Amino acid sequence: MVGRVLHIFNIFFFLISVFLGSQVQGRSLSVKKPDPDNAAATARWLVAQNSWGVLNTISSDLGGAPFGNVVSFSDGKPGKGKGIPYFYLTTLDPSARYGLKDPRASLTVSEYPLGTCGKIDPENPTCAKLTLTGKFKLVDPKSKEAEFAKTALFSKHSEMKDWPKSHNFQIFKLEIENIFLIDWFGGPKPITSDEYLHPKM
Amino acid sequence: MVGRVLHIFNIFFFLISVFLGSQVQGRSLSVKKPDPDNAAATARWLVAQNSWGVLNTISSDLGGAPFGNVVSFSDGKPGKGKGIPYFYLTTLDPSARYGLKDPRASLTVSEYPLGTCGKIDPENPTCAKLTLTGKFKLVDPKSKEAEFAKTALFSKHSEMKDWPKSHNFQIFKLEIENIFLIDWFGGPKPITSDEYLHPKM
Repeated sequence: MVGRVLHIFNIFFFLISVFLGSQVQGRSLSVKKPDPDNAAATARWLVAQNSWGVLNTISSDLGGAPFGNVVSFSDGKPGKGKGIPYFYLTTLDPSARYGLKDPRASLTVSEYPLGTCGKIDPENPTCAKLTLTGKFKLVDPKSKEAEFAKTALFSKHSEMKDWPKSHNFQIFKLEIENIFLIDWFGGPKPITSDEYLHPKM
Repeated sequence: MVGRVLHIFNIFFFLISVFLGSQVQGRSLSVKKPDPDNAAATARWLVAQNSWGVLNTISSDLGGAPFGNVVSFSDGKPGKGKGIPYFYLTTLDPSARYGLKDPRASLTVSEYPLGTCGKIDPENPTCAKLTLTGKFKLVDPKSKEAEFAKTALFSKHSEMKDWPKSHNFQIFKLEIENIFLIDWFGGPKPITSDEYLHPKM
């Protein structure tokens, strides 16, 4: 009897700890990592599971240097992502300012912070990494896309809706032109934007 | 009696889950986060505690787009970092190739994966983020600096020493020229390279 109660408690506390762990990291591991052979699905999984990444733009302040900046993003409500990363940025932060001057940009995310690489090194090719390269665009605030993007962002980043109005946050996106994915040995996997946007899950 | 046994089990499973959580994230939280007012110390802490970041270079393949790539790095043995990020890269990976053609580069790291931001959003200014901008350089393999860098890298990334010789991994570094740190409200903190390299801890 005591054994059975303890067993139930073990399961209970394991679940609680997994839940707390995922809360702190902001991750949702409800969707399993796809097979590395399914490159498009793996890329989409990385974008769906990560809540933040590094947005790279050309710095007009720093002699055209590539400037990476930590940003939050979302491609849709949890489990309903469409693959296009949306951002909620103010031009008080340099990236939006740079991106409006020169739209060449990329977004980089890693599997590592999701916790699924285990003890594998972040640079080990089996710990997946993704760079989406394309054009940084302001989303028309009156468009249907802006509605979708706002729901996408606020559902994954609940505090955004309370960010100061005076900072004039706007919705931006990355229009994807090139996809660089490493998720196994043997170099980057070739994926077209079309394959990425319509993956076989 | 049953209550006491359960209490002990609660503590046991909590500790197990904390231990597993920290293992999976590969983080060491032995050094406390500095006060946000001490910008240079905060920047150094971010570089010392993070084992990976996004290295940004200009992509000669993609029309000069800023290309961010997930890389491992180290600025020294644990607790003995000097602030200069060293990388162990092969030109089979595009970043080293791009950086050798055009040395303009940056390295971006976030406090978020360290777990110390709690439930704060990764884009919230109190969740610290750092971009070091400068020049990407190959380190002379016969120099004393290469010795330091190799020890720095291999002590934090133990599997690197076993990476395939045929891939011709080399040591690179970022020569820091500009520092962008956000660790609180009110915009980026001005830090010079000299303040960063010789912080008041």
